[in-house]
Amino acid sequence: VGVFDADVHGPSIPRTLGLIGLQLYVKGENIIPVEGPLGVKVISVGFMLPDETVAVIWRGPLKTAYIRQALAMTEWGNLDYLLIDLPPGTGDEQLTIAQLISGLDGLLLVTLPNLLSEKIVAKAKVFAERLNVKILGVIENMSYFKCPDTGKIYYIFGKGGGLKLADEVEAPLLASIPIDPRITETMDKGKPFVLEYPNSEVSKIILETADKIIKLLESS
Amino acid sequence: VGVFDADVHGPSIPRTLGLIGLQLYVKGENIIPVEGPLGVKVISVGFMLPDETVAVIWRGPLKTAYIRQALAMTEWGNLDYLLIDLPPGTGDEQLTIAQLISGLDGLLLVTLPNLLSEKIVAKAKVFAERLNVKILGVIENMSYFKCPDTGKIYYIFGKGGGLKLADEVEAPLLASIPIDPRITETMDKGKPFVLEYPNSEVSKIILETADKIIKLLESS
Repeated sequence: VGVFDADVHGPSIPRTLGLIGLQLYVKGENIIPVEGPLGVKVISVGFMLPDETVAVIWRGPLKTAYIRQALAMTEWGNLDYLLIDLPPGTGDEQLTIAQLISGLDGLLLVTLPNLLSEKIVAKAKVFAERLNVKILGVIENMSYFKCPDTGKIYYIFGKGGGLKLADEVEAPLLASIPIDPRITETMDKGKPFVLEYPNSEVSKIILETADKIIKLLESS
Repeated sequence: VGVFDADVHGPSIPRTLGLIGLQLYVKGENIIPVEGPLGVKVISVGFMLPDETVAVIWRGPLKTAYIRQALAMTEWGNLDYLLIDLPPGTGDEQLTIAQLISGLDGLLLVTLPNLLSEKIVAKAKVFAERLNVKILGVIENMSYFKCPDTGKIYYIFGKGGGLKLADEVEAPLLASIPIDPRITETMDKGKPFVLEYPNSEVSKIILETADKIIKLLESS
């Protein structure tokens, strides 16, 4: 599996995978990805900066050139899957990826349960149609908070946005992921949640979602 | 007060202020802002689209041209304050605003309490220095969830990011805003939270923060 972090202003993959401080290296004409947990190969602008405080202050054409070059020069090896993490929006990053990669299997949309988020993510439908990319499915994040002391469920960011989005973009709702404070904890520590808390409800949902995505790709 | 929504891909101001379906109108060479609750004047790309489902699929140069033109053509009238809502990042939108508006009073940084978010927002320091803009202060959002049934506080997105960010960018922490499910509810309904729930803890914090910002601006 490869992960291409296409968020140049806010690259979050190096920290969440525990790869802070690592650098890419170049072999001849090729960029060698950084290897993360479970052998995941990662490319991120974060690996090209001296440290985490440095900002990449780039206008669109520079971002486009970076994405184009990084994708072309990376020696991924034999990948089963390449995941591309995009920043929010329908701008340079999204356009460049959609226009550059011809065999793109599709988009995964992530929304919060509220209407404000749902309406904005739903704009991806027009984008996907215009660029002829399939929407594979919808993931609703931060669906609810289950109080660890009482077991009571609180819909702190609204309710139903994932299902509504799935309906609007005509794709399946693949998962509703509840809030678990340990997700933030593991992301900050750079440990994959599913390895740290394999028996948690969230890990179960994440692994089931991965299975669903694999099945979707194999059947298409 | 004027609000310029500089997020062209995900304009959230029209919905949060209850202005969905309204359009800007042009008088001669000028754009007349839409008037929202309490007389706030609003410009958003959302007012130029036929409906909320339409995506603005623009690369950087188009976004720059839009921001430049919208700011130049808008007849704001006599404003005390102009707030500019920026999307995440340090790209075209941020650069255009910083380079275009010479008398910019400063930046307000909004972070979550977790380290991942804090590290990314801290990149604004380099941006602010490079462009000679002051960082006025830091607002930590989604600081904690106070269980309405037991009163117990849960730090569901980590703890301390706001203070850490304030320290790193050498600006005051202006507020730590707790999670209140009614915030999402009022945003989706397009009602200002402080008018709907004036006696809530969050309203008190928001109004105190506004006072702090006004004082900061008056003393600078």
